[in-house]
Amino acid sequence: MTLEFFRLKTREEVLALFARFKPVGAEVLELPDAVGRVVAQAIGAPEDVPAFLRASMDGYAVRANDTFGATPGLPQYLEIKGSVPMGKTPDGVVGPGEAWRIATGGMLPQGATAVVMVEYTNEMPDGTLEVRRPVAPGENVLHPGEDVRAAELLFQAGRRLRPQDIGLLAALGVSRVRLYQRPRVAVLSSGDEIVPIDQKPPPAKVRDANAHLVAALVTEEGGVPLLKGIVPDDQETLNAVLAESLEEADLVLISGGSSVGARDLTLKAIQDLPQAEILVHGVAIRPGKPTILADLGGKPLLGLPGHPASAAVVMYALGRPLLHRLAGLEEPQPAWGGSVQARLSRNLAGASGREDFVRVRLRQDQDTLWADPVLGPSGLLSPMVKSDGLVIIPLGVEGLFRGDPVTVHLFI
Amino acid sequence: MTLEFFRLKTREEVLALFARFKPVGAEVLELPDAVGRVVAQAIGAPEDVPAFLRASMDGYAVRANDTFGATPGLPQYLEIKGSVPMGKTPDGVVGPGEAWRIATGGMLPQGATAVVMVEYTNEMPDGTLEVRRPVAPGENVLHPGEDVRAAELLFQAGRRLRPQDIGLLAALGVSRVRLYQRPRVAVLSSGDEIVPIDQKPPPAKVRDANAHLVAALVTEEGGVPLLKGIVPDDQETLNAVLAESLEEADLVLISGGSSVGARDLTLKAIQDLPQAEILVHGVAIRPGKPTILADLGGKPLLGLPGHPASAAVVMYALGRPLLHRLAGLEEPQPAWGGSVQARLSRNLAGASGREDFVRVRLRQDQDTLWADPVLGPSGLLSPMVKSDGLVIIPLGVEGLFRGDPVTVHLFI
Repeated sequence: MTLEFFRLKTREEVLALFARFKPVGAEVLELPDAVGRVVAQAIGAPEDVPAFLRASMDGYAVRANDTFGATPGLPQYLEIKGSVPMGKTPDGVVGPGEAWRIATGGMLPQGATAVVMVEYTNEMPDGTLEVRRPVAPGENVLHPGEDVRAAELLFQAGRRLRPQDIGLLAALGVSRVRLYQRPRVAVLSSGDEIVPIDQKPPPAKVRDANAHLVAALVTEEGGVPLLKGIVPDDQETLNAVLAESLEEADLVLISGGSSVGARDLTLKAIQDLPQAEILVHGVAIRPGKPTILADLGGKPLLGLPGHPASAAVVMYALGRPLLHRLAGLEEPQPAWGGSVQARLSRNLAGASGREDFVRVRLRQDQDTLWADPVLGPSGLLSPMVKSDGLVIIPLGVEGLFRGDPVTVHLFI
Repeated sequence: MTLEFFRLKTREEVLALFARFKPVGAEVLELPDAVGRVVAQAIGAPEDVPAFLRASMDGYAVRANDTFGATPGLPQYLEIKGSVPMGKTPDGVVGPGEAWRIATGGMLPQGATAVVMVEYTNEMPDGTLEVRRPVAPGENVLHPGEDVRAAELLFQAGRRLRPQDIGLLAALGVSRVRLYQRPRVAVLSSGDEIVPIDQKPPPAKVRDANAHLVAALVTEEGGVPLLKGIVPDDQETLNAVLAESLEEADLVLISGGSSVGARDLTLKAIQDLPQAEILVHGVAIRPGKPTILADLGGKPLLGLPGHPASAAVVMYALGRPLLHRLAGLEEPQPAWGGSVQARLSRNLAGASGREDFVRVRLRQDQDTLWADPVLGPSGLLSPMVKSDGLVIIPLGVEGLFRGDPVTVHLFI
């Protein structure tokens, strides 16, 4: 038991554990607030789009077979009988040999089967229309239900709504949608050496970079960070703040405690909570080994390393997928989104027994996209700032060579 | 003049015209509100990070040369003289042959030049430390200024702040930053056939999909959409709403008016404004030809096609770069962000004399990422909803063949 407990878990094993946590609750929002949010309940089309036969070009509504055989040299001639007013039902019928003026989006009059584009016509002074090109039936018109059919499934639960999705819902009159709430995320920093960022740290102390970095990533991922401040290395205070965070938040992110002693305090505070279970204590990634995952009565806690640069990597590698899980996002993150293929510009040694997350900067050199490793101790933040993304050297791989193709996982 | 005026402009020509518009004004914000925002004034480092010599591992602060030659078989023995308290200046000096316990992030005592990791040591009951591996001077410590040096330029104006950037600013105590404001964008729909989305359209009318689609894209790009509602095809009303929008917004997006008559109203309304100049009337892209760009006394107006699907393409192709310009974003949008390389899964004909924007869905088939064209009339919105991005068939290219490598510009 103890041995199993302290065995490092692989990243894949940790990701698999996220399935035990349920997405947050749902809420109903107006369409303008729905962009970028995740659908909580499948949405079907309440009606057809378009709802009526519409012109998709400016021109003339005609019976298509009246135009057959028309050429520039031998045009067909039709009689102009009216104009379709925009937004109104045309009050007439297009008979044989007749044409009606119509603008894009106008409703086709009865009898018409196509629209001749204005470019291929000429209005004569006597009200005759010269048509220099034939149209097929249905040409330059949109049919009822051609875009969307009534009752068609539009979006599954778990879909993130993009601008065009919002546009389609608007066209259908779906003005309110049931969406997952934004996950509320308590962000705690622990450690006697940490001071708030607006204070000048006395000797041997540092500012609370982690909380701000972590909160920013939560914001970018659509969560709501709750900055719970700095907790000193004191068991009672830590227990109290943790209990309070659990009341308010869907997820607790605690950073700091990178030293063994501080980590022990965090572990103890978790164990003191009712229904708490420590699932992971150490992950086989570099940086990020001292990561903790716990289930606090159904709500997850992720314990992040104290080094800001390590905390950032863990947030990208594990925090983001955990947030997605809580946010209800069910679409598989597509392999082609958020990553690019590049070539490594120098040899890299891996980390024995751990996946190695290497910061890289991208550089386009003619046809080749190079991934330049940005090296430096894992305690430094500036290499993360100078990088575009991360290359993962897999477990069990001793290293990569210059010129090797690599996948670069891009930062937000 | 008239001929030049009506010549279609290429997308590159339109993008070049955006340079005449100035970024919006700046504002000073607290760090938690700065994520994803654009720096308006270069930020330098006010001090060194780290500010003092710190341990980057749990272990023992030592004089490095006291460990030279240590092996598991022939360890070195040092005398443990104290423990460094976290967040406090150690009250002593590490003399020759001495060691101090230290946790990650602790301040190195005077005299110490390195940290021996706890894994390579053993504490004996008599207070002696067994060291089984040598450390080099500077090993497992972070030096003052190693991450960032005082006065170093951190971020140029025009940089979008990412989570790790926020973390670095927090570490430096830069708690307030000068950022470009979010561009305010007036969103207008014109057309007698348009009704608000919460109304059931009478026959021949349609709901206002465009405004919601466009506003959603503005929101996703960090702008603030101002929904100005639907303007009927009436010159006086259009003029009044346009003038009001110019007062309130940094950019006016007007959609609808896809018919020739409605477009004429919009052009007239622009010309009636003081200091107005129509820069573009027609762009050589498909869909999106009837796009208008005007300079209204320094503020841009973009006239979008009436078809929602065309409006969406124009927003991705031109609206987004224009928003970036106004938002002050100066970093070149990296060629590797927001696009992927794929292979076209079928032959495609281009649009004569226009760049052709083809909607595609991505599909991974073993080693190949395929771009499957999602075809359908440009008046339909659902193909945009089913797609992952756009492939551009360049001007002057007759078409592309199955298997051709293509760049897919991903949607947001």
